[in-house]
Amino acid sequence: MSFILALIPGDGVGPEIVNASKRILGKLIENYDLKIDIIEVEAGDSALAKYGTALPQQTIDVINKADVILKGPVGESAMDVVVKLRQMYDMYANIRPAKTLPNVQSKYSNVDILIVRENTEDLYKGYEYLIDNDSAVGMKIITRKASERIAHVALNYAVKRKKKVTCVHKANVMRITDGLFAKACRNVIKGIEYNEMYVDAAAANLVRNPNMFDVIVTTNVYGDILSDEAAQIAGSLGLAPSANIGDNKALFEPVHGAAFDIAGKDIANPTAFLLSVSMLFEYLYDKSKDNRYLKASNSLLDSIISVYSENKYTTIDVGGNTKLSQMSDVIYQRIK
Amino acid sequence: MSFILALIPGDGVGPEIVNASKRILGKLIENYDLKIDIIEVEAGDSALAKYGTALPQQTIDVINKADVILKGPVGESAMDVVVKLRQMYDMYANIRPAKTLPNVQSKYSNVDILIVRENTEDLYKGYEYLIDNDSAVGMKIITRKASERIAHVALNYAVKRKKKVTCVHKANVMRITDGLFAKACRNVIKGIEYNEMYVDAAAANLVRNPNMFDVIVTTNVYGDILSDEAAQIAGSLGLAPSANIGDNKALFEPVHGAAFDIAGKDIANPTAFLLSVSMLFEYLYDKSKDNRYLKASNSLLDSIISVYSENKYTTIDVGGNTKLSQMSDVIYQRIK
Ligand SMILES: CC(C)[C@H](C(=O)O)[C@@H](O)C(=O)O
Ligand SMILES: CC(C)[C@H](C(=O)O)[C@@H](O)C(=O)O
Repeated sequence: MSFILALIPGDGVGPEIVNASKRILGKLIENYDLKIDIIEVEAGDSALAKYGTALPQQTIDVINKADVILKGPVGESAMDVVVKLRQMYDMYANIRPAKTLPNVQSKYSNVDILIVRENTEDLYKGYEYLIDNDSAVGMKIITRKASERIAHVALNYAVKRKKKVTCVHKANVMRITDGLFAKACRNVIKGIEYNEMYVDAAAANLVRNPNMFDVIVTTNVYGDILSDEAAQIAGSLGLAPSANIGDNKALFEPVHGAAFDIAGKDIANPTAFLLSVSMLFEYLYDKSKDNRYLKASNSLLDSIISVYSENKYTTIDVGGNTKLSQMSDVIYQRIK
Repeated sequence: MSFILALIPGDGVGPEIVNASKRILGKLIENYDLKIDIIEVEAGDSALAKYGTALPQQTIDVINKADVILKGPVGESAMDVVVKLRQMYDMYANIRPAKTLPNVQSKYSNVDILIVRENTEDLYKGYEYLIDNDSAVGMKIITRKASERIAHVALNYAVKRKKKVTCVHKANVMRITDGLFAKACRNVIKGIEYNEMYVDAAAANLVRNPNMFDVIVTTNVYGDILSDEAAQIAGSLGLAPSANIGDNKALFEPVHGAAFDIAGKDIANPTAFLLSVSMLFEYLYDKSKDNRYLKASNSLLDSIISVYSENKYTTIDVGGNTKLSQMSDVIYQRIK
C-alpha cells in the first residue's frame, strides 16, 4: 500500500521545524521501506500574502488526492486553513493526547489523558450572523450522527487504554444541544467505565487531579479549551501533538501556534511536530495493517523519549540549551 | 439606609452552612448596627419537590422587594434557580475572585485573579431548539450593550487593583460574536494595561503562570469554565465565592455545588459562603457609602483569614479536622 502525504510547512517556527524534521521523515521511510510520496504545499499567512488566500487552489488539488496531511503551525489565518480542512474533508475526530514526557518540569506527574474532541460542528461550523450593528448570533450545532460517531471513536481508544471514558458537557444549562450530545455518548459507550462531568467541573478537576481521567470525549468548543489546559498540565502546550481523523483523510499537526516571536532563531522545539509524525505513522498502520508503519511510529517515539530521558539535548523551552537543529539531529541519529 | 436580604439555604450542604453562618451574620449586623432585614425563602431541589417548581412564586415575591440575595448551593435544579434569577433581574456581572488563602495546599502560590464574567447572554440565554429528532441548535447571543457594560465593570475593578485587564475570547473562530465582544472591550477599556487572549490559550496560561493575570473579562460560557479552573488553581473550587451584580439587585453565592455526598455530616466548609457574605457587605457599602458595611465586610474577611493563618480550625477538605459547626464558631468568636 502506498500513500500520498501533503506537507504544509506553515508560518513562524513552522518552516524551520518542518525542515529539520524532513531528514527524520526520510530516514524512517528509507529504514522501513515505506511507500510514502511527500508533496510540499503552501497554506497559512505566507500563502495568504502570496496568493491572496490562506488555502490556495493548488494546495487543495494536492490535498484532494493525498491520504494524509502533515501540517506545521499556521499564524492568524489558522481558522481558514485548519478549521476549513477539518470540515472540507469531514475529519471529525480530533485526537489530543496529553502525556507527560520524561524530565519535563511540571507540577503534575505521569499525566496520561486522551482528549477526543468532536471536530466538525458546534460553533466551529461558523454559522454566525450580525442581527444588526449591535447584536450577533452564532449557532451551536449538535447532531446525533456526529455525536455518536465521536462517541464510537472514544470507545475504541478507551478499550485499548484504561477502559474509561468521561463525557464532558454542560447539559444542565444547554439541555437540548449538550443534552443530545450526552445522550448519544450514553447510548454508544457501553461495556467500559463511563461517567459524565460538567465542563466547568472538568476544568477544575484537571487541575485538582488529572489522573482521574483516561479518555475524555467532548464537543468542539469545550475540547478546544480542555485540550490546551490538559496539554499544559501534562507539561507544556508546546509539546502536544494532535490528529484530525476522518474516514478518508487525516491531518496531523502540533497543537501549538506559529510562535512568531522565536521564529528564525533555531530555538523552537520540534517535539510536538515529531510526535504528530509518530501519530501519522500509527494512522497509516491502522489503514494498511502493514507492521512497518507501526515500527516507524515506535522508532520515532522511542527516539524522542530517549532524548528526553537523557535530558541533554533539549531546547530552551523545556530547560535545555540545545538548538532546534541539534535536537532534531540527535533524534535523527537515534532512529533505528 | 436599610436593606432587605433574601436568604436561600439551598440543597445538600447548603442548609447546614447557611445555618452555621446565620449567627455570624447576626453578630456582624449587631456589632456594626446595620439595617438589614433578613427574609428566608425556599428555592432549589427541595422547593421543586415540595412545590413543583424550583423557584416558587412566594420566593419571587420576596426577591422582588429584596435588595440582595444570599444563596447557598443548589442541586440539579441550579439552572432554574440561579441562571433564571441572573436573567430575571439582569444581574449582568458575575464577579469571581480566585485568591489563595493562607495554608491551603496548592501547587501555586499567591494567586490573585478576578474573573469578570458576562452573566446574561451567550448560550446561557437558553435559546435552544431541536431542528428534528437528530439535530439541535443553540444560539450564542452577544450584544454590544451587554459587552460594553461588562467591560466597564472590568475596567472599574482593574483601576482598584493592578490596572490590567485580559479580555478572553475566541474571535479567530467566532469572528462575529466573539469579535463583537472583543471590539466592545477594546473600545471601553482604556487608560490601563489591556490585552486579549484566546480562550484555549487562557486555559493553558492559567496552569502555566496564573500570576500573569489580574482581571479577566470574558463571555458567559468561557467565564463559567475559566472561573472554576482559576478557583482550583488558587487552592480549591470549594473555597470560591461569587457575586452576581445588576444595577438594582445582586446575588451572592459560593461557586461550589450542593455536595450531597457530604450533606448532613457537619463537615462541609463554610468558607466560600462566608466569603460571599463578605462580598455582599462590600456591595452594600458601595450602594450606601456607609462605612459600617465596609467594616463588617472586612471584619468577616479578617476572621476567616485569621482562621486559615492559624491553621488549626479548618475542615477536612483543606486538610484540617474541624467540624463545620466548630469552624464557624471560631470565626464567630473572632468577629470584631
Ligand atoms: C487555530 C484554531 C482555529 C484552532 C482551533 O480552535 O481549533 C486551534 O486552537 C486548535 O485547537 O487546533
Ligand atoms: C449551576 C450552573 C447553572 C452554574 C453556571 O453554569 O453558571 C454554575 O456552574 C456557576 O458557574 O454558577
